[in-house]
Amino acid sequence: MSTTRIALLGFGTVGQAVARLILAQPDVSLTHVFNRHVARKRVDWLPGVTWTESIDDILAARPDIVIEVVGGRDPAGHWIAQALASGADVVTANKQLIANEGDRLLADASRNGRRLLFEAAVAGGIPVIRGIREGLAGDRLTRVLGVLNGTCNYILTRMESAHLGFDEALAEAQAAGFAEADPTDDLDGYDARAKLSILARVALGYALPPERIACGSIRPVRDIDFVYAAQLGTTIRQVSRAIVEGDGLVAGVTPGLVPTGAPLARAVRNQNIVVVTGDAGGDTGFFGFGAGGGPTAVAVMSDVLALSGHRVAAPAGTPDARQPVSVRAGMRERQYVRFVVDDRPGIIAAIASACAAHAINIDSVLQIPWADKQALPFVVTLDPCEPASLVPALAAMRALPFNVAEPFAMPFVE
Amino acid sequence: MSTTRIALLGFGTVGQAVARLILAQPDVSLTHVFNRHVARKRVDWLPGVTWTESIDDILAARPDIVIEVVGGRDPAGHWIAQALASGADVVTANKQLIANEGDRLLADASRNGRRLLFEAAVAGGIPVIRGIREGLAGDRLTRVLGVLNGTCNYILTRMESAHLGFDEALAEAQAAGFAEADPTDDLDGYDARAKLSILARVALGYALPPERIACGSIRPVRDIDFVYAAQLGTTIRQVSRAIVEGDGLVAGVTPGLVPTGAPLARAVRNQNIVVVTGDAGGDTGFFGFGAGGGPTAVAVMSDVLALSGHRVAAPAGTPDARQPVSVRAGMRERQYVRFVVDDRPGIIAAIASACAAHAINIDSVLQIPWADKQALPFVVTLDPCEPASLVPALAAMRALPFNVAEPFAMPFVE
Repeated sequence: MSTTRIALLGFGTVGQAVARLILAQPDVSLTHVFNRHVARKRVDWLPGVTWTESIDDILAARPDIVIEVVGGRDPAGHWIAQALASGADVVTANKQLIANEGDRLLADASRNGRRLLFEAAVAGGIPVIRGIREGLAGDRLTRVLGVLNGTCNYILTRMESAHLGFDEALAEAQAAGFAEADPTDDLDGYDARAKLSILARVALGYALPPERIACGSIRPVRDIDFVYAAQLGTTIRQVSRAIVEGDGLVAGVTPGLVPTGAPLARAVRNQNIVVVTGDAGGDTGFFGFGAGGGPTAVAVMSDVLALSGHRVAAPAGTPDARQPVSVRAGMRERQYVRFVVDDRPGIIAAIASACAAHAINIDSVLQIPWADKQALPFVVTLDPCEPASLVPALAAMRALPFNVAEPFAMPFVE
Repeated sequence: MSTTRIALLGFGTVGQAVARLILAQPDVSLTHVFNRHVARKRVDWLPGVTWTESIDDILAARPDIVIEVVGGRDPAGHWIAQALASGADVVTANKQLIANEGDRLLADASRNGRRLLFEAAVAGGIPVIRGIREGLAGDRLTRVLGVLNGTCNYILTRMESAHLGFDEALAEAQAAGFAEADPTDDLDGYDARAKLSILARVALGYALPPERIACGSIRPVRDIDFVYAAQLGTTIRQVSRAIVEGDGLVAGVTPGLVPTGAPLARAVRNQNIVVVTGDAGGDTGFFGFGAGGGPTAVAVMSDVLALSGHRVAAPAGTPDARQPVSVRAGMRERQYVRFVVDDRPGIIAAIASACAAHAINIDSVLQIPWADKQALPFVVTLDPCEPASLVPALAAMRALPFNVAEPFAMPFVE
């Protein structure tokens, strides 16, 4: 087998980890590294590599494979299209790009007789794209459930195990390098929904653009919610889910209550987990580290080795995605609603009538002893109810005068 | 793409499930079904299929792919060799055959320019062979840890959750179809070690014939062991493990204590789980259903689709396995020893001196209140000790006169 020549776009944490793995493999050779201000990036453990800050240098060198670990949609998408047109196969870790422009880029690849692989774009080192697309190819999958964001999972599981407040856990995650200075994309679900969009395409065969996936932030989660969750035999995770429902989908990223023994509860710290459900195979799961240089580099290298070993059909082809007739954020399911109130008589009655007005049954009321009666947290759980009833009922509950904080609702994810 | 013609050897539970999945796929067609006493097996939902009890009919029909789900080493191995020689690719679910004769059959395949795939041979519907071989190709793996036998896991987790005795749990497993009338292969570890042998080859690159893997039976596990395990923050699983240790391996199938929150504890009922550890990617895991018609058929079909879609390198090639310099059943680790004694003064002293004579430290002594002083169960945990010390110390403890049952030892698997 002749040596596969590789150009690497991006030499940050992931790029450097990829370079180290390439060095450890026979039959593949890193010939070019591209980065802005490349002079600052040059290292002496990559002898014989051409360092450049010009994408044209990369294209002119005609590499067999271009690896893109720059991130961001622009100009990464443009570079990938150029690389495919120039005759290179491409491996990318770019989830936002694949989620938003993947179909177009895969069509580009197909038209050029090239291949575009993106194992690292979802759940880092966990071979979930390959596991679903190839390992479960014989099944019909109807559900994807996952913990797809390591930052949120680190924060939530530290709140759970060390009884930290949200802000403390976030600060710890930032100090440990598991959260960005601006954690918006992670906390508010935009990172996870890009990955869910890709998984819905790969596992369910549905086109589900990220913007059609509702996002609920984990910011309202308080330490007290873990106390109530435990009373209910559950814990709290940022749950990403896409579920086939007739000709449509239920799809969302939301904080949710998961049973303590359930697979999603098993992801701790910055781990990720994906569970898919098939008609024939039942539930099959994949877990591990969803981010970080090493795990992400493993996923990139696996794609590189698949391409260089010709283990991938050429061209990759892009079977048409189905268009979901509808995408709903939730479905008929149990709900948890946590209030913080200025305690007075009549509160439960008022909440109960807001529920009754929308034909929603209260399942239980939980209240642990609490000193501060002016800011008393307690929880109401609701029997399974449709989103169409829940949304107006929650609006009515939010308007009640005794609230001192916005009521916080999340589903029980069974 | 022309239609891929498939012959199916074996029409039991798995074979029938495979046939149903083939029907659901375009571009693949089931042309022949082979079974002994095939007349009894014929079904009307497979029109146009040739039913035969002659392997020569199968070979003469020149199928593109032969699927072997007959089981047993002989004559299945002979048939697979004949099928490869006749120009067919082969997909098998036969773990004993692959574990014992896989290298020879893969060499056969290579010599004939054909491919032999066996995803279903390990952990049924969980795409662990593909996940490791392709998804983690870029990493250097040093450890495989698994719950590989659904029968044992059903029994142990039913003992754990329903507080059943061993015999009750076994009877329940047999009634539910999760255990054979003769459960020896499952309970005593021979089934799991065949799978571990295959995983050691695929994940670690070591030739590890099943007979070099020590097996400890789960039969001595009693319900009381789960009580003590819980006191220690653990539970009990049949653990299969292969760990690189210098130029050798630690490899064994054994009942073991696993921390309650650890991945292996997460496999419940008849589920399987495999966790591999890589230098770059850390721990990555795969779980799901390791047996049963549906899950096994999904794995078989995934191999079929990989072959028919030309997603597999042809020929598959058989990189030479390393030979381990040594294979040890255990390593320096903590131990749990459960005694059942006719209570009298001096018991702890006698056990302590047996340990001290081999330089083993006692970590703790656990004893819950117990009415029957003539058959009193209690537990001693030992600080990490080498097998070379543990084995003679256990022999000395077994010989103590107050035992009314054989002392039962198992490691803490961290």
